[in-house]
Amino acid sequence: MNFCSRCGRPVAWEIPAGDTLPRHVCAGCGTVHYQNPKIVVGCVPEQDGRILLCKRAIAPRAGYWTLPAGFLENGESLEAGAIRETLEEAMARVEILRMLAVVDVIDSHQVHVTYAAKLLGSYGAGHETLDARLFEAADVPWADIAFRSVEFALRRYLDDRASGVDRLHTTAIRGLPPP
Amino acid sequence: MNFCSRCGRPVAWEIPAGDTLPRHVCAGCGTVHYQNPKIVVGCVPEQDGRILLCKRAIAPRAGYWTLPAGFLENGESLEAGAIRETLEEAMARVEILRMLAVVDVIDSHQVHVTYAAKLLGSYGAGHETLDARLFEAADVPWADIAFRSVEFALRRYLDDRASGVDRLHTTAIRGLPPP
Repeated sequence: MNFCSRCGRPVAWEIPAGDTLPRHVCAGCGTVHYQNPKIVVGCVPEQDGRILLCKRAIAPRAGYWTLPAGFLENGESLEAGAIRETLEEAMARVEILRMLAVVDVIDSHQVHVTYAAKLLGSYGAGHETLDARLFEAADVPWADIAFRSVEFALRRYLDDRASGVDRLHTTAIRGLPPP
Repeated sequence: MNFCSRCGRPVAWEIPAGDTLPRHVCAGCGTVHYQNPKIVVGCVPEQDGRILLCKRAIAPRAGYWTLPAGFLENGESLEAGAIRETLEEAMARVEILRMLAVVDVIDSHQVHVTYAAKLLGSYGAGHETLDARLFEAADVPWADIAFRSVEFALRRYLDDRASGVDRLHTTAIRGLPPP
């Protein structure tokens, strides 16, 4: 951030009066431009015991497998966002069953919220997806999973299924994924 | 948003190529400025069966009672944010026990994440707080609670305590609070 999005003049990086952290502050109009973590919402879509994964068509981690997920939009609920992203990326309708995982992805400035979901009907590759495929638990391509938050949610999902006890799983991840 | 924070030129409000929603797009450098919901983190601090509430010193809802909570910062976990906000607003140290509530506050473009917590030691009024006080469940000032998301989290907390069953509670709220 170099310029004030309100008045167009240059911003400084300084601690505003009464604050404790440096922010982008406009020397002209005084606006403080806060930057905060974004929410990524997605789901684990299951059908007949198999899990729907998407092969990413775009960076970061193009060519690796992921769960359908993306940024929550203003004006939508977390569940609605997970449903929308699954439709966009996997061309699939899902019924949300429960919140499965909440992961602090600290250095990406993101929080990833993943739901357990039931896949309703068909699926396919959306425009950010190279391939969409149903995997048996034994066939999940662990070495080719795109993100650690996705691996965490998938492993906990399978743990819960094996134990028969549904829990909310949380963790924090530091560091950035490869490009 | 009127100007591009990257290059300082005016932005247009239009649907970028390949997107489905209008965004602020810079006609000069092409940067798309996404705007997404922010996360508010807080907790229900309990000590000897009583709950710590804060009387707000600032807008919105100055003079009304709330739980210690505020915006999650880049670089911190949800739990760390809840702990920090409780220290800032209620001058209190807490131990986080579990995630209690996740509320979509749709028209404020916020998601409120509230934890159950144990109040450790003393408390007081931080600089955004007029008063901090411990309340018995029977004495919670329901008519003077600042926000619906706070009322939701408090009521579910007391429900869980009464039933002895800890659950994660979720809901969505529409509309804006009074100023």
